[in-house]
Amino acid sequence: MTSTWAFLGPSGTFCEMALQQVAPDNARLEPCQDVATALDRVRERVADSAVVPIENSVEGGVNATLDNLVASAPLVIAAEVAVPVTFVLAGRPGTSLDRVRAISTHPHAWAQCRGWVHLNLPEASYVAGTSTSAPARALAESDDPLSFEAVLCNPLAAQRYGLEVLAGGVADNPDAVTRFVQVTRPGRVGEPTGADKTTLMVQAPHDRAGALLDMLEQFSARGVNLSRIESRPVGDSLGRYRFSIDVEGHIREERVQAAFIGLHRTCPMVRFLGSYPRLDARPVVVPAGTSDKDFIVARAWVADILAGRTI
Amino acid sequence: MTSTWAFLGPSGTFCEMALQQVAPDNARLEPCQDVATALDRVRERVADSAVVPIENSVEGGVNATLDNLVASAPLVIAAEVAVPVTFVLAGRPGTSLDRVRAISTHPHAWAQCRGWVHLNLPEASYVAGTSTSAPARALAESDDPLSFEAVLCNPLAAQRYGLEVLAGGVADNPDAVTRFVQVTRPGRVGEPTGADKTTLMVQAPHDRAGALLDMLEQFSARGVNLSRIESRPVGDSLGRYRFSIDVEGHIREERVQAAFIGLHRTCPMVRFLGSYPRLDARPVVVPAGTSDKDFIVARAWVADILAGRTI
Amino acid sequence: MTSTWAFLGPSGTFCEMALQQVAPDNARLEPCQDVATALDRVRERVADSAVVPIENSVEGGVNATLDNLVASAPLVIAAEVAVPVTFVLAGRPGTSLDRVRAISTHPHAWAQCRGWVHLNLPEASYVAGTSTSAPARALAESDDPLSFEAVLCNPLAAQRYGLEVLAGGVADNPDAVTRFVQVTRPGRVGEPTGADKTTLMVQAPHDRAGALLDMLEQFSARGVNLSRIESRPVGDSLGRYRFSIDVEGHIREERVQAAFIGLHRTCPMVRFLGSYPRLDARPVVVPAGTSDKDFIVARAWVADILAGRTI
Amino acid sequence: MTSTWAFLGPSGTFCEMALQQVAPDNARLEPCQDVATALDRVRERVADSAVVPIENSVEGGVNATLDNLVASAPLVIAAEVAVPVTFVLAGRPGTSLDRVRAISTHPHAWAQCRGWVHLNLPEASYVAGTSTSAPARALAESDDPLSFEAVLCNPLAAQRYGLEVLAGGVADNPDAVTRFVQVTRPGRVGEPTGADKTTLMVQAPHDRAGALLDMLEQFSARGVNLSRIESRPVGDSLGRYRFSIDVEGHIREERVQAAFIGLHRTCPMVRFLGSYPRLDARPVVVPAGTSDKDFIVARAWVADILAGRTI
Repeated sequence: MTSTWAFLGPSGTFCEMALQQVAPDNARLEPCQDVATALDRVRERVADSAVVPIENSVEGGVNATLDNLVASAPLVIAAEVAVPVTFVLAGRPGTSLDRVRAISTHPHAWAQCRGWVHLNLPEASYVAGTSTSAPARALAESDDPLSFEAVLCNPLAAQRYGLEVLAGGVADNPDAVTRFVQVTRPGRVGEPTGADKTTLMVQAPHDRAGALLDMLEQFSARGVNLSRIESRPVGDSLGRYRFSIDVEGHIREERVQAAFIGLHRTCPMVRFLGSYPRLDARPVVVPAGTSDKDFIVARAWVADILAGRTI
Repeated sequence: MTSTWAFLGPSGTFCEMALQQVAPDNARLEPCQDVATALDRVRERVADSAVVPIENSVEGGVNATLDNLVASAPLVIAAEVAVPVTFVLAGRPGTSLDRVRAISTHPHAWAQCRGWVHLNLPEASYVAGTSTSAPARALAESDDPLSFEAVLCNPLAAQRYGLEVLAGGVADNPDAVTRFVQVTRPGRVGEPTGADKTTLMVQAPHDRAGALLDMLEQFSARGVNLSRIESRPVGDSLGRYRFSIDVEGHIREERVQAAFIGLHRTCPMVRFLGSYPRLDARPVVVPAGTSDKDFIVARAWVADILAGRTI
Repeated sequence: MTSTWAFLGPSGTFCEMALQQVAPDNARLEPCQDVATALDRVRERVADSAVVPIENSVEGGVNATLDNLVASAPLVIAAEVAVPVTFVLAGRPGTSLDRVRAISTHPHAWAQCRGWVHLNLPEASYVAGTSTSAPARALAESDDPLSFEAVLCNPLAAQRYGLEVLAGGVADNPDAVTRFVQVTRPGRVGEPTGADKTTLMVQAPHDRAGALLDMLEQFSARGVNLSRIESRPVGDSLGRYRFSIDVEGHIREERVQAAFIGLHRTCPMVRFLGSYPRLDARPVVVPAGTSDKDFIVARAWVADILAGRTI
Repeated sequence: MTSTWAFLGPSGTFCEMALQQVAPDNARLEPCQDVATALDRVRERVADSAVVPIENSVEGGVNATLDNLVASAPLVIAAEVAVPVTFVLAGRPGTSLDRVRAISTHPHAWAQCRGWVHLNLPEASYVAGTSTSAPARALAESDDPLSFEAVLCNPLAAQRYGLEVLAGGVADNPDAVTRFVQVTRPGRVGEPTGADKTTLMVQAPHDRAGALLDMLEQFSARGVNLSRIESRPVGDSLGRYRFSIDVEGHIREERVQAAFIGLHRTCPMVRFLGSYPRLDARPVVVPAGTSDKDFIVARAWVADILAGRTI
């Protein structure tokens, strides 16, 4: 049976490159105009999965994704994928570099090529685009005069739209990478692999100093290590934050559950956003005293105390 | 049926005064020569309960009790009693104050009357006794010449041994109080009263800095407040400690259990020593987010996550 | 003498509205195409001050500003200004609402009006712009056919470019506000007002668990309260973060200095970004034991100990 | 010039054995009847130093010493000495083991030989003594009948008083050791050796939960490690404690001073009780970021910020 996958379109984005790593070959692809739309497709059961960007090593968290994941009906992350961020400068066939006066691309992409452009095309101005591939498509297909002569897109888009590559390997930071996630509707949580990651959003109590500290101690008291933390405004006024967090470990592990229970008890909002295998497959180190067995043995000991069996 | 109560004897000690507050009228009393003996009587099933001192507001914890409670077969505290520490100076009938050259009493009692003696009988020397009532008895019953002419004991002992009170209300600190505990063999733990205290002994991990801090965070992360902490040497070398701790709350409360589970997971030794009503009957304040209901709701929420029911 | 003020242009942006609140009337204004350019104008001594957005109550921190402030030669914040984020939908004179098929504005503005558009112009598509006023200017001045018929801009821009307001008070969140900062070159730090804020960027040590917790304790150990924390990627790889932080207090206060000293000792990077009066002029509450006098007295006490004068 | 050394007498105590390790050969010795007297001799300038016990590996802190050090005019610890706690059972010449029905010694000594006595002289009862050597002296010199036939004392006392050793190497715990300290009047604090210890007494704020945790963070925030912590009652009521603490490091080190400043600011009472070389001469490990240089560089950096020199 064919599954339907929504993604941040149009065709030829980095996001589609990410999707190709996790979707089956016969997947039906549905490019969406923005992250919110892609995620809503899953909520509406039109799509089975959505692939959207969540974090960029240079620009940081992708706010649209972080915020939308908790904004409406529950979704969970099922997998993660990383795509190196390297661009080509492409134009209509026959374009020469010295005729490029304006370049279009997504603002995130622009931010990661500004240095290269400054060095190689110091006179070029910037035209904001809604994705990295939309301007490429416009350049290939539009009959209208456009306000730019070249685009910064990925090789896939250049090829798909028949553009000519004017320069390859464009990236101010050759190590830049964007992390994408596959998002689904929640279901019974699967088994841990031993190299897992759990994502959540939590709002710290805001009415007193040290609230963030207390919140972080809910993790450290159970030996749960954070691998990512991003602050996001709650949105109703300045000065109130929630935090998008990745922790090392799986919600089926006792120590992760204990941290979640602690957060649920003490924070105004916690949302589970999925436990899934880590991209790097590096096994999670479980600190002494925080293995499942440690929890089970300790609970049995308390039960013995209560029953007066032995202490 | 008559129960047997061991206590720190001999007859007429402050400890017997404490016992009278918790033992039934028809209890069979068994004075013991030291705390260890009294507690062993319970372990050996010769006595049903033991009453022993555990803390003095001036001298601090009673080490013999603190250490013995964890030294051998399990015992638990079932109740606590406080007795004001006020002495009488007593001698054989006919003794006058100006003939008192030496005074005997237990070293703890001496420590709490030194100031009074220094002021009123500056020449008097001290003869150590094994309890506050043993010297009183010796004075009353011995035919031998003794190295002291007066004793500092409680009114009960003076009366029981027919001594004459030379001075009453002797106490450097009129607010001084000794806390005693009733100790029994462990059984099924009873229900909380809402104004309870739990006693435990825990050894902090010793192999790294900050271990005590981490141990204390096991309590604070669950909103469990400490009302007493006493360090005791582990005994095998200098520099290793365990801590005798009273917390506000009952082991049947989720938050207390969560703290115990955390300690069991991370500390080399934890011993439960009883949950029992607080002397002052002051209800325990349960911090926001740490009620039993908070724990139950949070655990149910995690179960829902795992089952994919809702998040 | 006339001072020169750079700001995020073009003419008519919210940023210019913010600038008007802090710049002298005779200031020479220099609109810049992006935040980096405005800040560089100050570094290059072409401008005396720059006014740039730093935080939006809905979208969060303005990454370009947060990152640029620490990317190059030192700058400090001298003042802050807040501007309510309310838009008008504007078109060329004569445009009617039902003819609007596409709308252009800055992506941040779009994010804050999406709900309104969805409700009122459900068919309208979005064209990304580089600011809130650039599309307004284009609409007013361009002779070319454009891909949009209306813009979402602030009232100032609509007026300045002679556009017709098709709808006013457009804002999904009527409480939304953007905070702007006046940035200058560093100089001798002025005196506290008692209602101050200090901004800094700090990179937490990344090589071990609990590093963020330890970093936050450098503040809490001195009673310094955080009013804002934003994570930013360090940029060299996924998983390494630095934090843009506002604390309540002034760098001339001992407790704030003590926190800075603690951070400098233990973190790979700390950058002071200015102490300046709080927007709300609410006096900072200095916790017990953390006043300047407390520090001075405590240091004098340690000096006495060292000298053997008294302890 | 001859110095005068007070110590916990009488002649022949373990304390005198400790004194011999630190006092010059020509020191004038003054045995005192209790710890308070020995320390007061120094306060009164009758003695230059006092040597008193402070901690026993089995029995814990010596309360009389811990409390007296902060009870009156300031004193500081200048050195520490450890003496192994091994006893001999001694009697009048001609005494045979099977005639020993009662044994006298100091209660601390008794506590450390109880197991041996139980095993070897199960019928023997205990007579409390005021020191380990006083009963030895009584046995040797008294013409009166005594209530005991043997004493547990150290080899020095047995030899000095001409008693016959009935059994040697008596000690339930062969590793038991008592730590003694040399106490002097405060003067200018000397230079660190790199392997130092600092002793202090501090009262935690008692009016709120977590106060002990906060107090300990004053140390951990500066990388100062605790090697000993003993709770002592403040003495005015149950439930209020102060803590006798040894930290690794010297008060001339910046990190130790920073911790002291933090305590002085936030705790109702802190008393410095001396910085002196560690018994084991093991160099103190200074955690990264807490060396004197780290503090000096960080303070200079803050000064530069204030002056606007550079940041």
